[in-house]
Amino acid sequence: MSYFLPHIDAMSGYVPGEQPRGRTFVKLNTNENPYAPSHRVAEAMMPILLEGRLRLYPDPVGTRFCETAAKLHGVHPDQIMTGNGSDDILTILTRAFAGPGRPVASAQPGYILYETLAQIQNAPFRSVEYPVNWTLEPEHLRDLENPAMFYLANPNSPSGTAMAPDQVAKLAEALPCPLVVDEAYADFADTNCIELVKTHPNVIVSRTLSKGYALAGLRLGYCIASAEIIAGLNKVKDSYNCDMLSLAGGIAALEDQAWLRDTRARILATRERLATFVAELGYLVPPSQANFVWCEGGPPAEEVYKALRERDILVRLMRYPGREPALRITVGTDEQIDFLETALREIV
Amino acid sequence: MSYFLPHIDAMSGYVPGEQPRGRTFVKLNTNENPYAPSHRVAEAMMPILLEGRLRLYPDPVGTRFCETAAKLHGVHPDQIMTGNGSDDILTILTRAFAGPGRPVASAQPGYILYETLAQIQNAPFRSVEYPVNWTLEPEHLRDLENPAMFYLANPNSPSGTAMAPDQVAKLAEALPCPLVVDEAYADFADTNCIELVKTHPNVIVSRTLSKGYALAGLRLGYCIASAEIIAGLNKVKDSYNCDMLSLAGGIAALEDQAWLRDTRARILATRERLATFVAELGYLVPPSQANFVWCEGGPPAEEVYKALRERDILVRLMRYPGREPALRITVGTDEQIDFLETALREIV
Repeated sequence: MSYFLPHIDAMSGYVPGEQPRGRTFVKLNTNENPYAPSHRVAEAMMPILLEGRLRLYPDPVGTRFCETAAKLHGVHPDQIMTGNGSDDILTILTRAFAGPGRPVASAQPGYILYETLAQIQNAPFRSVEYPVNWTLEPEHLRDLENPAMFYLANPNSPSGTAMAPDQVAKLAEALPCPLVVDEAYADFADTNCIELVKTHPNVIVSRTLSKGYALAGLRLGYCIASAEIIAGLNKVKDSYNCDMLSLAGGIAALEDQAWLRDTRARILATRERLATFVAELGYLVPPSQANFVWCEGGPPAEEVYKALRERDILVRLMRYPGREPALRITVGTDEQIDFLETALREIV
Repeated sequence: MSYFLPHIDAMSGYVPGEQPRGRTFVKLNTNENPYAPSHRVAEAMMPILLEGRLRLYPDPVGTRFCETAAKLHGVHPDQIMTGNGSDDILTILTRAFAGPGRPVASAQPGYILYETLAQIQNAPFRSVEYPVNWTLEPEHLRDLENPAMFYLANPNSPSGTAMAPDQVAKLAEALPCPLVVDEAYADFADTNCIELVKTHPNVIVSRTLSKGYALAGLRLGYCIASAEIIAGLNKVKDSYNCDMLSLAGGIAALEDQAWLRDTRARILATRERLATFVAELGYLVPPSQANFVWCEGGPPAEEVYKALRERDILVRLMRYPGREPALRITVGTDEQIDFLETALREIV
């Protein structure tokens, strides 16, 4: 006999990308930023540590963080909710909108976590297939039966492609439910959908500091939506979901836009090099607006993955229904990508 | 038209204890530890900050933290799961076990959050009333209709009382479901129920570093249960629910048991003084095993709360059905409690 809910017993659980311990890899598998975060992040934490302020609870709604994010994005602070990473944001959204008879919808190949979140919530999961140009049109959504929410990773993982805001607006208009635009990788893209929040009341944008701001270890994300939606979501989140250090560090990170600009420029230059040589090796690489490239076709992904692993290089091998296994490779430093290129040219 | 699930729309949301901003209070309302945490906590974080390691994801299961907690409590590391504060642990437990037709049960007056967690999960909430001696017997549970889980805060909030482990064992044996012993305040108690995890497969113990270890701002908790239960719970938790700084700081905190012993001794001495003079003022104060005292009867709680607030002293005014409003007062430093005593003797 199990104490667990039957749908929890039935699920297998999300498996995150490997976080190796006890062995040093060139780690190009979980889309971490290869550069250290802004030094202002640590500086902002120091007074908290030195003054023993961790004994106190953090501000439950992260008022100052929300004010900072609101200013950056040109929205009202009431339109921001903080999360313990954007995973927490996605969990809160799923718990607020989905459940039995209230399906979670998304597009495939996409971010695998959305289906796991639906499973935990005992909600049906419905997905549509991306067309070859990785751009969804309203007619692609036609067969979704009454979705309660739609997750659009934009830029998308694993493809790295991004849909233009006017295309996303068309989806929002076609959907009877919230459209969650998961912009985890938007710091590396040319555009984003934050303006749509002002014109489309069903658009919710999710952001993280893990990728662009190099703070995956800190767990800080936020979402931007109408004040009404944020008020409802706040009922679902844990009261103190963001700790004092991450809120202080997150404010400092958002305020250091010069750091973001420089780091982004470096990563985009390296992305260009990476995309070029993997294409030369025979992979089909959709145009990436993220800090990774997706390599389909070309030399067999599973063998290449293993051969790279033997050379202490970790990339992500991913399998999606109806497609050959393929590789998602994070944009590392130039040195890391040189090392990868040398290895790949030996292997294939 | 609302996009939210009907049960989310219907609920009002948990209101945490006031975290004042922009005004300095003697803060005796949310059971924070009045002393700064062990300096080893900050020291453990420094290498992460100095080496820019926040760019990487944390260990998703907090392996080293679990090993440290397991060693401290004499259990296997597979019997520990980390949480973003014990709030996160309680959320995960509720999502794993409760839902429509799967009630959450608890005892009243108790920790208000349990009912909120049931509401978010759309689970019925059933409660039994504590008898005057604050000790539940199996017969008190008789009328609970098929609970899917039972939350026992032990020590209890708001009463501060604790049930002995052999009494808790009797409840575990009488229940058809997991018994979650929420030991948020156990660091201030004479006993705890961790040994029951070894003998009673339905016992789950929840712990936090917020109170005893003075790390409310860090958000770190954990639970102890059978390896089977922990494996199931891990499917429900967010992959990276604990950040790198809190895991490192948490290990350092658990390893500094000398700090805990000293701080605990100071708080227990002050608790004795506090309990004595509020009793002299006419309050009924159950014997506290926590870092707060519960003041029922005596001078009218609402007026006293307001008069204290005017004197920049914040305590918690709490209302439970069928009872007069009462005060929960956190054990502060001796200086804070002197200040409170002077104020109270003026007021009443």
